Amino acid sequence: MARKIATPRIPKKEYEARVPRLRERLIQLQVELKAAPFPVLLVVAGVEGAGRGELINTLNGWLDPRGVETVAFHTPTDEERERPFMWRFWRSLSPRGRMGIFAGSWYTETLREEIHGAKNLTQLDHELHRIRRFEQLLADDGALILKVWLHLSKTAQHKRLHALASDERTAWRVKPDDWHHHRLYDRLGQTARRILDATHRPATPWLIVGADDERSRDLAVGQLLLTRFREHARKIKKAQSQKAKAQGTAAAPLRAAGLRRLLALPLDQQLSAADYEEKRDKWLGRLNHAVRAASAQHRSIVFVFEGWDAAGKGGAIRRLSSAIDARDYRVIPIAKPNDEEKAHHYLWRFWRHVPRAGMVTIYDRSWYGRVLVERLEGFCSEAEWKRAFTEINDFEAQLTERGIIVVKFWMHISKDEQLRRFREREDTAYKRHKIDHEDWRNRRKWHAYEVAVGDMLALTDTTFAPWHLIPANNKRHARLQILKTACKQIETALEGK
Amino acid sequence: MARKIATPRIPKKEYEARVPRLRERLIQLQVELKAAPFPVLLVVAGVEGAGRGELINTLNGWLDPRGVETVAFHTPTDEERERPFMWRFWRSLSPRGRMGIFAGSWYTETLREEIHGAKNLTQLDHELHRIRRFEQLLADDGALILKVWLHLSKTAQHKRLHALASDERTAWRVKPDDWHHHRLYDRLGQTARRILDATHRPATPWLIVGADDERSRDLAVGQLLLTRFREHARKIKKAQSQKAKAQGTAAAPLRAAGLRRLLALPLDQQLSAADYEEKRDKWLGRLNHAVRAASAQHRSIVFVFEGWDAAGKGGAIRRLSSAIDARDYRVIPIAKPNDEEKAHHYLWRFWRHVPRAGMVTIYDRSWYGRVLVERLEGFCSEAEWKRAFTEINDFEAQLTERGIIVVKFWMHISKDEQLRRFREREDTAYKRHKIDHEDWRNRRKWHAYEVAVGDMLALTDTTFAPWHLIPANNKRHARLQILKTACKQIETALEGK
Repeated sequence: MARKIATPRIPKKEYEARVPRLRERLIQLQVELKAAPFPVLLVVAGVEGAGRGELINTLNGWLDPRGVETVAFHTPTDEERERPFMWRFWRSLSPRGRMGIFAGSWYTETLREEIHGAKNLTQLDHELHRIRRFEQLLADDGALILKVWLHLSKTAQHKRLHALASDERTAWRVKPDDWHHHRLYDRLGQTARRILDATHRPATPWLIVGADDERSRDLAVGQLLLTRFREHARKIKKAQSQKAKAQGTAAAPLRAAGLRRLLALPLDQQLSAADYEEKRDKWLGRLNHAVRAASAQHRSIVFVFEGWDAAGKGGAIRRLSSAIDARDYRVIPIAKPNDEEKAHHYLWRFWRHVPRAGMVTIYDRSWYGRVLVERLEGFCSEAEWKRAFTEINDFEAQLTERGIIVVKFWMHISKDEQLRRFREREDTAYKRHKIDHEDWRNRRKWHAYEVAVGDMLALTDTTFAPWHLIPANNKRHARLQILKTACKQIETALEGK
Repeated sequence: MARKIATPRIPKKEYEARVPRLRERLIQLQVELKAAPFPVLLVVAGVEGAGRGELINTLNGWLDPRGVETVAFHTPTDEERERPFMWRFWRSLSPRGRMGIFAGSWYTETLREEIHGAKNLTQLDHELHRIRRFEQLLADDGALILKVWLHLSKTAQHKRLHALASDERTAWRVKPDDWHHHRLYDRLGQTARRILDATHRPATPWLIVGADDERSRDLAVGQLLLTRFREHARKIKKAQSQKAKAQGTAAAPLRAAGLRRLLALPLDQQLSAADYEEKRDKWLGRLNHAVRAASAQHRSIVFVFEGWDAAGKGGAIRRLSSAIDARDYRVIPIAKPNDEEKAHHYLWRFWRHVPRAGMVTIYDRSWYGRVLVERLEGFCSEAEWKRAFTEINDFEAQLTERGIIVVKFWMHISKDEQLRRFREREDTAYKRHKIDHEDWRNRRKWHAYEVAVGDMLALTDTTFAPWHLIPANNKRHARLQILKTACKQIETALEGK
């Protein structure tokens, strides 16, 4: 059960005496937050007339505007509707070191639709489950999520609306909808309780703030920000010092079946140039048809290319994309995250490139870096990469739920073949930029990578987003198999719906 | 007249011999580009069947994908339609150090609509004018804009389409529209020539590339990239070294009338607290109505707050915004640009916050920084800030043309009043963060700022986006006058349409 914060009436004099000190401490909080490795997300929800807007205006007045933003959501735009439900929230997340005050949030739609009574309980449960997972994922990443529910009794709500409406200077604050919601007070209250109960979790609790007294309400939320920020900053600091000490077991497999599958893959297929060219053109044509058929149904396609260094991802992507209109696809090469990306959850930079309806995104390397290079190089903690398998499955589930076809390739070559290609690259002027000391470093950890790839295959090979293992010692064979496999998965997905 | 590049047939052998060297040099170009202070924008346009898509695929194959992106535009989304026409192009501009290959561009719509013959010449001229200004603005900022028109004779077009269509492996490349365009070849050619002629400018020339031979076409464009990049990099380098030597005359007024207007403003009005509170509530109500009326007509509002340090911008913004639903407005505080913003034209970071239809954006400082602090501190060259007056008027004209109401305030206080407020800030704990050495530095240049403000008032006080001078020694009076002025401008704008 969410904790309720008492908000006894505060006289104006006392309020005015307390505000300067509170403001000073909030400014201090913002200075500290600027250097903190997490964002503060303050969700403001509550009943009509409880003064969500006024509270937000007050907070904005107290805080330094350069470190805080108010986030609101209106009817989703077509750019938003064409992507998974959570996309619009991902794009509005505040980065580490900043504060977002959510005037609307991932709850708004759930609450709003309830007002119209159009939603059944199964769908509501599904939405609440999605919200829990989303908040958990952010909290796991360190975000401080403060969820405040402004409460007003039915009598108090009536009194408030009446008082505002009867003074001509404030009458404009009361909208027709407000009275409508007032009449539905009891039913809305029931729904709200259900939503609050279902999303009140240890890491992301709700706090119910009495809104009868405006001054008390605003001070309570200001105070809450201070207290929870202190606690949280301490907790994160402690967790970081422990993380530094922890020793990962990055090189031991979590599930050996994946590694066995990888090692069992035969690698040395043959394919003549003539044979290749003929078949290639046939499959390119078929792929073009499949992609256009998907587009006509407003289905998007996400291609994921993973594989050893020098496995031929670039060439395969060029072949594949030659079948697609240059205006319909984007290749997203994934290297080190930039500053903006680093200031967000690791999945943020992949969410932002999720294609619009009917479009194609090709990721040249992807979110799987989390369980490959980041796991092995210690760029994230053991808890983080272990958690990532579920987070990734969740992400891909959201994509497929929205109708996006997710096609994943692991391009596999032998260690000898890699060496041959590294040397060739060093000898070819326009290929030399493709190879650097990181490639050699990764190569020295070949076995550890095999283990990580094995776990990836075992733990993220889902029915909705299966892995395709591509033997790639022979480039022609690999490219052709990629064309074929892509075609077939897309065609099957289109038949299925 | 655009220059035409000859593209004689190149045998496969010769092509294969030349490609490796070209690729090597393109990769080298990208390495240099990474550190260059400008972006490369390659616009690829041309007749159907000339192989724009194939050329882009080839270039993408030659280049390192990490420094280049293909940009395409489809039917504008509602997020795009709700903003000025150029917004979608601004949001897709490549930053300095990167290359954008524009599969579609600001020309696409102009050309596309012409196909349907729906446009009259006046409108076409207006669009071409807008395009010229846009390209000029980018070129002035240093961008290398390469515009390539792929040409194919009518006979060659027929041959190409026929050849593709009759081979079952490539038949999918020919779309029904292509034949339609072929039949319209002569009329489309006329329009294209008109467009090319009108937008062929010294700084942003068109290059016509014969597309009869694919290999020759691709090599020609690759070669063009190299040549033009070299020339451009040299030119930019030279300009920068001259800029370092130039001495600005930042402190002399361009037009004295503005300064006179500023100095003539009476500053010491009186307003009692009781009087203020009553009038404030009345005007807040009226402003709320005006903003909601604008929103109902899908008209957006952009507020610009400029003024001396400590003139009371923050307080005025808080008072003003309390009349607007917290979900409907955003305050954009303008401080130093971040890395991403610095990598773009200075107007880019303001374009990105242009509100959607019916929404409100409040800029706490704005693009006028260019002609104030940047002028006086030498953050930009004299040519740059002088050019900015026109660029800014152009920007605001585009906003108002789209129905956005632009309300601009200069909050004016006396030098003595500023000193009093600085001291007060230093004595108040929660205000101390608001004052730093830059404020004192700016204060020492009071007169120079007066001159710059005067020029700003004289040169950017347009009928469509007028300046409101607000005497602000008395905070209450200033806030009230801002409410009144905002109301009246919005109401007038709504009546006007």
